[in-house]
Amino acid sequence: MTAKATHADMANAIRFLSMDAIEKAKSGHPGMPMGMADVATVLFTRFMKFDAKAPKWADRDRFVLSAGHGSMLLYALGYLTGFEDLDIEQIRNFRQMGYRTAGHPEFGHVAIADTTTGPLGQGITNAVGFALAEKMLAARHGKDIIDHYTYVIAGDGCLMEGISQEAISMAGHWGLEKLIVLWDDNSICIDGDTSLSTSDDQLARFQASNWDVSRCDGHDPEAIAKAIEAARASGRPSLIACKTVIGYGAPTKAGTEKVHGAPLGAEELAGARDKLNWPHAPFEIPAPVLEAWRAAGSRGGAEHAAWAGRLAAYPGKAEFERANGGTLPQGWREAVHAFKKKASAEQPKWATRKASQEALEALTPAIPEMIGGSADLTHSNLTHTKVTKSITPSDFSGRYIHYGVREHGMAAVMNGLALHGGFIPYGGTFLIFANYLWPALRMSAMMEQRVIYVLTHDSIGLGEDGPTHQPIETIAALRATPNVLVFRPCDPVETMEAYEAALDNITGPSVLALSRQNLPTLRVDHTNENMSARGAYVLAEAEGKRLVTILATGSEVSLALDARKLLAEKGIGAAVVSMPCWELFERQPKEYRATVLGEGTVRVAVEALGTFGWERWVGEAGAIVGMKGFGASAPAEKLYEHFGITAKAVADAAQARL
Amino acid sequence: MTAKATHADMANAIRFLSMDAIEKAKSGHPGMPMGMADVATVLFTRFMKFDAKAPKWADRDRFVLSAGHGSMLLYALGYLTGFEDLDIEQIRNFRQMGYRTAGHPEFGHVAIADTTTGPLGQGITNAVGFALAEKMLAARHGKDIIDHYTYVIAGDGCLMEGISQEAISMAGHWGLEKLIVLWDDNSICIDGDTSLSTSDDQLARFQASNWDVSRCDGHDPEAIAKAIEAARASGRPSLIACKTVIGYGAPTKAGTEKVHGAPLGAEELAGARDKLNWPHAPFEIPAPVLEAWRAAGSRGGAEHAAWAGRLAAYPGKAEFERANGGTLPQGWREAVHAFKKKASAEQPKWATRKASQEALEALTPAIPEMIGGSADLTHSNLTHTKVTKSITPSDFSGRYIHYGVREHGMAAVMNGLALHGGFIPYGGTFLIFANYLWPALRMSAMMEQRVIYVLTHDSIGLGEDGPTHQPIETIAALRATPNVLVFRPCDPVETMEAYEAALDNITGPSVLALSRQNLPTLRVDHTNENMSARGAYVLAEAEGKRLVTILATGSEVSLALDARKLLAEKGIGAAVVSMPCWELFERQPKEYRATVLGEGTVRVAVEALGTFGWERWVGEAGAIVGMKGFGASAPAEKLYEHFGITAKAVADAAQARL
Repeated sequence: MTAKATHADMANAIRFLSMDAIEKAKSGHPGMPMGMADVATVLFTRFMKFDAKAPKWADRDRFVLSAGHGSMLLYALGYLTGFEDLDIEQIRNFRQMGYRTAGHPEFGHVAIADTTTGPLGQGITNAVGFALAEKMLAARHGKDIIDHYTYVIAGDGCLMEGISQEAISMAGHWGLEKLIVLWDDNSICIDGDTSLSTSDDQLARFQASNWDVSRCDGHDPEAIAKAIEAARASGRPSLIACKTVIGYGAPTKAGTEKVHGAPLGAEELAGARDKLNWPHAPFEIPAPVLEAWRAAGSRGGAEHAAWAGRLAAYPGKAEFERANGGTLPQGWREAVHAFKKKASAEQPKWATRKASQEALEALTPAIPEMIGGSADLTHSNLTHTKVTKSITPSDFSGRYIHYGVREHGMAAVMNGLALHGGFIPYGGTFLIFANYLWPALRMSAMMEQRVIYVLTHDSIGLGEDGPTHQPIETIAALRATPNVLVFRPCDPVETMEAYEAALDNITGPSVLALSRQNLPTLRVDHTNENMSARGAYVLAEAEGKRLVTILATGSEVSLALDARKLLAEKGIGAAVVSMPCWELFERQPKEYRATVLGEGTVRVAVEALGTFGWERWVGEAGAIVGMKGFGASAPAEKLYEHFGITAKAVADAAQARL
Repeated sequence: MTAKATHADMANAIRFLSMDAIEKAKSGHPGMPMGMADVATVLFTRFMKFDAKAPKWADRDRFVLSAGHGSMLLYALGYLTGFEDLDIEQIRNFRQMGYRTAGHPEFGHVAIADTTTGPLGQGITNAVGFALAEKMLAARHGKDIIDHYTYVIAGDGCLMEGISQEAISMAGHWGLEKLIVLWDDNSICIDGDTSLSTSDDQLARFQASNWDVSRCDGHDPEAIAKAIEAARASGRPSLIACKTVIGYGAPTKAGTEKVHGAPLGAEELAGARDKLNWPHAPFEIPAPVLEAWRAAGSRGGAEHAAWAGRLAAYPGKAEFERANGGTLPQGWREAVHAFKKKASAEQPKWATRKASQEALEALTPAIPEMIGGSADLTHSNLTHTKVTKSITPSDFSGRYIHYGVREHGMAAVMNGLALHGGFIPYGGTFLIFANYLWPALRMSAMMEQRVIYVLTHDSIGLGEDGPTHQPIETIAALRATPNVLVFRPCDPVETMEAYEAALDNITGPSVLALSRQNLPTLRVDHTNENMSARGAYVLAEAEGKRLVTILATGSEVSLALDARKLLAEKGIGAAVVSMPCWELFERQPKEYRATVLGEGTVRVAVEALGTFGWERWVGEAGAIVGMKGFGASAPAEKLYEHFGITAKAVADAAQARL
């Protein structure tokens, strides 16, 4: 150790904070932080535009640790550069209850985490969303206001996940030249050598999608710096294969899978201290090293100040800050009310996907930060509107994204757009293909991001495309996922209400499940109140005494009204409850819920999807009319008949239980 | 039309059967069958080894229409070549209730469908499983018995889905040289030109994974034939980019997205008849054309007969046919019983993932067709056994597959292995990553394939890795998916019983959810009967009168027993029901279910996962102790305490309801 800290000292500080924290926690992944410490040191001391004292500055460079298991790398960087929420106690209590330093980096826990990573492939795809958001904001506000890089550290695991191909392909298509991926090319995966399971030429693969590619020695700081400089100058998204030794510095375990996901053990750790000449006690960083790191942490202060000056002088400052802060513009709610009033008056017979399109036609002019898109089902999802011009590789001023047949990638890119700030993304596919994007939707929910999923063709009502395309279990899975609002509106009024609630839901994603088939308008009495935001409400009270309560969602609400009529003909009073959103209904006062559900009445639920979970609402004495297995290929009306999802079946089920 | 049918006549027969059937159905996808008719005609008349009269012959070439929306291509081929289950009435009633000709090809509906396709990317990955199964069977039985190609038709959509990269990467790694992908390179996706969303150089992408690649004019039969010949000789998996015009022959819509997914309409269809010189009425194929096609359908008869002769002479015939037919070998059930008896006697304290490994150590020697693997979590999933040697690119005699970090691809390859015949695949990952593979698991269920998913680290008991890795909603989604048996065993005995039931379940997949953490052996009284196959059973009856019934699964069964003790101390009789498999419990007689559930008792369920769906079993008056939101990062025991999943919480919940 010299008086002035060297690169090696600074990198070793990362290594030993990581090793020691993992040793103390008795769990964690030391291999990656040890292997990538040199690369991270070069990146954070020479390139990253950031200000540890103002970590959420809008034009900072973004950093995504896609290989999230290496979380100690990020926490070490945060502590060393002086992020205030990452003191040494946080490092000492890595992976412990009540501390921010979770096993994988969690957005919202530590400021340095621009996204939550851990499930492999998500981070690199969020990063595509960051880089896309940067281009889109630059197109709107100019490079004086937004002009930053997005850096990613990704491992072999990220590159093996299919979603990474969707990310690579999109980034290459759009030409996101400020996206730089540093691949931890250590040739080791969990099972052992990567040659156990892959023979890909990663550089050729990225090149096939128009990326700039290069290699460097991931332990040679000058080589790393040169590679990053060249990547920044390349005019394309860049992959730098950083050849590293996993667990660099571990005397016997370095270069093997043994150092990936477990503490080194006391003996190996002592050996590493010898080998790397690091005589300091655990969690002790020598003053010169810490000073050098803190200097790196404040390096961006001047740039930050200069940017703040430019922003202050920018005429569009207020609008930029509004959208970036997530506040909706004036006037949008009036558009909601006008739409509902008109729909209640005119009572169109629209599929709810068509109602969604009309709602979006009203909302997108009022809310310029709404960014549409579809996973190549635009004409079916009806997600495009007159004002949402397509984004192209040469024009990022638009508002509509052709994601291609990449549902999973679409969702993870939407997470990136939402996390970046400045945009409210919505994206379409068929409801069944929520199965493909579910892991990313889970991240929207965990990260509390306002992402709107427009999922059409939402039941066996999809018809002829058959069982592969008919969602059965999907809606249950979405409802079971924490912090997701799942809407299944029944008509244009409820569809607009679902959008209103989704836009108001600033701490999580929302799903709109929408019909392929036409439906009547059922909400014919206008009110500005968002009835769907109650989750469920009595759409039609019983004639006479209520003996039966029929619970229905979406396309089955009109069927429930027919069943109500059949029961009325037999002198049985039945109410119809429209239940567009279970999650919001659960948040209502107990008394409201009891009144709506009609305690003491026979309850029958109907939904042309799997029945899983409906017992919560109908109780053991109730009945559920829905799908017991997979669907079939036939016209929709035949399928409803075939599977017994009819007004008569609902009425019969109720009567049998009286 | 000449007296002798030309290639063009034969291809046009496919085109008009497709156009006319779609027109009559008023729905469907004509663009692909019209565009790929020439390629399909060359493939089926000159290359495909098949026998329309014996469609399931084990050594036939496999054909996968990965772009499943082009189902009429497959049905037309089936009818024209003489598959007995595809007469002209089936074609006339395309997409209608009660007919085999579903909107997308369904395995089990029509013999020509080697797999169900439609959700894009699944088919091409199943095909990797077919080609891998072929190599593995050839390594076991020799090329006299198994030596066939796997052909795939894939579209741009399949190649955009992330799972296709996992497929390409695996096929290239293993060097599956008998896999040939014919890419319908028509530059059109649903939103419009593929340039809206992709700029990939697909040939370079496949080359990066060691594929042989070539291009041909997809409307020139000789060029197509030459390309297929070259691919067969290449010694690598092959991609042939067949440049085609989508909707070839449609006078105004050809070459546009308008012909992708909707009937042509009467005028355009009449125009196509003119343009292609096809004056015949709908569903009428001129005799010379049908004869030529039927000759192609019986072309493989001689090869089939020769193969049957070789098989008859093969000493391993009985064993080959046994495994291929899906019958388990003699003696395996004795291994199950011996294992259970020993575990009940020795009562080890194993995590159920460890119990799974020990069960597999007993089963894999007894059942040679079991093929293990993991998505790069072998040391965590504990899926490897002493007799399951790894498969490598140079040795396919092994029984263990390193799938890499490719959960979705693993599941779809397992579907291919199971569909091919001869193997029972099981594969591991963490339970949370079932979210990644769910779309393929759905296909296991829909196709009724015996695939076993070994999903470890199955709750917040996973501990420090934190919320990104702790499954909450996953188990509900799996239970909601039709035709899946979801097991969550509590100890070594139940773990082996879950494997026994999974192996007996020949019409669908099974999931084993297994703990990371150690658990006591609870089944200490041996019985050969598979108690888990009842789905749920009383593990410990109440002392005295039963007032409370505690329902628990997996790692929470021992916690339930502790709660029972706490209640007993207060003089409250509580029974503990172990409920390893909801689906099997639902199949029990009503009386059995009522006895187990303890009708009239207070029911409390406990599971360290999301609570969604448990209302089915506890009723409105019951309680559910489980997770209400995402987890956290801390040691497992702290998490149980923090989230209130404790014996005391269970006992308190019961007492509060008495």
